[in-house]
Amino acid sequence: VLSYQKLQMTHSQTTNFKTIAVIGGGSWATALVKILCEKDIHINWWIRQQNDIDYIKKFGHNPRYLRSADLNLSKIFLTTQLAEAIKEAELIIFAVPSAFVREVIENIGAEVLQSKIIASAIKGMISSENMIITEFLEKKMNVSPQKMCVIAGPCHAEEVAMEKQSYLTIASDNDELAKEFAETLSCRFIKATSCNDVYGVEYCAVMKNIYAIACGLAHGLNYGDNFQAVLVSNAMTEIKRFLKVVNPRKRKLNQSAYLGDLLVTTYSQFSRNRTFGNMLSRGYSIRSAQLEMGMIAEGYYAVRSIYEIGVQHNIKMPIIKAVYNSIHERISPIPEFRILAGYLK
Amino acid sequence: VLSYQKLQMTHSQTTNFKTIAVIGGGSWATALVKILCEKDIHINWWIRQQNDIDYIKKFGHNPRYLRSADLNLSKIFLTTQLAEAIKEAELIIFAVPSAFVREVIENIGAEVLQSKIIASAIKGMISSENMIITEFLEKKMNVSPQKMCVIAGPCHAEEVAMEKQSYLTIASDNDELAKEFAETLSCRFIKATSCNDVYGVEYCAVMKNIYAIACGLAHGLNYGDNFQAVLVSNAMTEIKRFLKVVNPRKRKLNQSAYLGDLLVTTYSQFSRNRTFGNMLSRGYSIRSAQLEMGMIAEGYYAVRSIYEIGVQHNIKMPIIKAVYNSIHERISPIPEFRILAGYLK
Repeated sequence: VLSYQKLQMTHSQTTNFKTIAVIGGGSWATALVKILCEKDIHINWWIRQQNDIDYIKKFGHNPRYLRSADLNLSKIFLTTQLAEAIKEAELIIFAVPSAFVREVIENIGAEVLQSKIIASAIKGMISSENMIITEFLEKKMNVSPQKMCVIAGPCHAEEVAMEKQSYLTIASDNDELAKEFAETLSCRFIKATSCNDVYGVEYCAVMKNIYAIACGLAHGLNYGDNFQAVLVSNAMTEIKRFLKVVNPRKRKLNQSAYLGDLLVTTYSQFSRNRTFGNMLSRGYSIRSAQLEMGMIAEGYYAVRSIYEIGVQHNIKMPIIKAVYNSIHERISPIPEFRILAGYLK
Repeated sequence: VLSYQKLQMTHSQTTNFKTIAVIGGGSWATALVKILCEKDIHINWWIRQQNDIDYIKKFGHNPRYLRSADLNLSKIFLTTQLAEAIKEAELIIFAVPSAFVREVIENIGAEVLQSKIIASAIKGMISSENMIITEFLEKKMNVSPQKMCVIAGPCHAEEVAMEKQSYLTIASDNDELAKEFAETLSCRFIKATSCNDVYGVEYCAVMKNIYAIACGLAHGLNYGDNFQAVLVSNAMTEIKRFLKVVNPRKRKLNQSAYLGDLLVTTYSQFSRNRTFGNMLSRGYSIRSAQLEMGMIAEGYYAVRSIYEIGVQHNIKMPIIKAVYNSIHERISPIPEFRILAGYLK
């Protein structure tokens, strides 16, 4: 037993952050709250619905998402009031679906945002502007890149609930912030590291959801594992091509924050985006798939933005195009994937 | 229906090869025979056991491997005699387990080998020499690299049997040969492309089996999908590091022949190497796992060669080391993977 304990990674209980606000009540927000509970920290958790809050206070877990994650209520202050959640917090984590993030950001307002450190855990874009979250915060709300970071990495919330060894990457232009926040998130079952490629990591987190839809579409059309392996390899090539134009710099795309994140999403049977794609090619309408799943997959919105940026810069992305056509142009995925199969290699 | 037919990829029935010998009776050999049956070609198929041949002649499928693949017997000449299989063939495909390839090669002899075109479909090494197959053929049998190629790519034999759309890569120093043989293998359900990175593609085909064992070991130790995504990303980094030392040149590792091949093997529930790793960390001895599976996984042999080459060149490969220690040093994978988890990021 002793030798195991020696091998166990150790992390300090305390961090430089005293109070962190988590904005959002979904499964990823819940997983982040669970991770933060490992530290001596005050967590202000904003959830939209009062009855969800009442349930969490009574039973110690989220009634709707990640029910299996037991939460340490002594560290958590729950509120439906954004201002109340944010007031004392040095750092705000955004973890709402991308469709709602603009509303939340604008409710908080530029002045307050500029006075805080912002961490985005959102894997989607502001679709009205075709902007990733940090880009929107910088360009539209004048938040300094030095005060922002992105939480990325291959990390299913479900496995965080089970305390399975997982890895995160914190990306920021501010090295010190990235390292400090990575240390804050590191615990018994999380190893977080830092990097400085904010745009690369954030775009990759967005695009992986589109490729997961592509894998779901392919699966629904009875393409097999051989095809999927080629699809995912070609997805990496598309991501590389896209980033080379949109945000050129040296980056190692085989790292966990890029390739790992793509893999965990495209190869998961539980990925919502994959399920969504699968339902579409099995014949569900978008509306029925949405109703059946109780939500729309992030990739549904993201593919429009990424496709438009690709067209604007003339970037060749046949997989993105096949998904875009299947979803937004209502073209049957059968011929779309037959054409795509000819492009892939 | 018409529009579908138009979209269908077309390939000529005839090729420049009249007679091709396939050496080996396993599932990949059987899949290659099935693919070649799509063309106007004579296939000389060497199988060790006469009773397997009798069965195939009677029922039109291999009794032991890939039973679901129906074979066009009118195109196939079956024999247990190597010399008979090879005599009229312009091209010989080696598709035996790597443990037997040296014996087969030496039985044929340098003179005959030099007079043929050789294609290796073997995903292992000559372990006595720590050499990949094309390297051994060149250095020990004086076969010209201009007359050799490697069949690679993410391709489960099982999905070839089902005629699911799959992709192959033919690697050769001889561009024309690579293209010609790629065209020979392309058919209704196979798209084969060519490349000229023989060593890179062949090493990758060997190493992926070791990483599949690593994924199996991790799975058996109850690590989850988050961990596996990080493991596979780090595997790509190790492959890159290894090739940079052993065979430095420009190559795009995100292509199907490298990344795709790694993915199809590490993410398959049916991979023998993954199953082997899983059994070991569930407590099976190597001997019992071997007996239970009826064979030893290719990665079992490969990891010794790759580990030794790594040590010789001082290449940092923590995953290879963890697998090597777990298998050949008989160290429990539990502490090995705890140490590995600390290296990964």
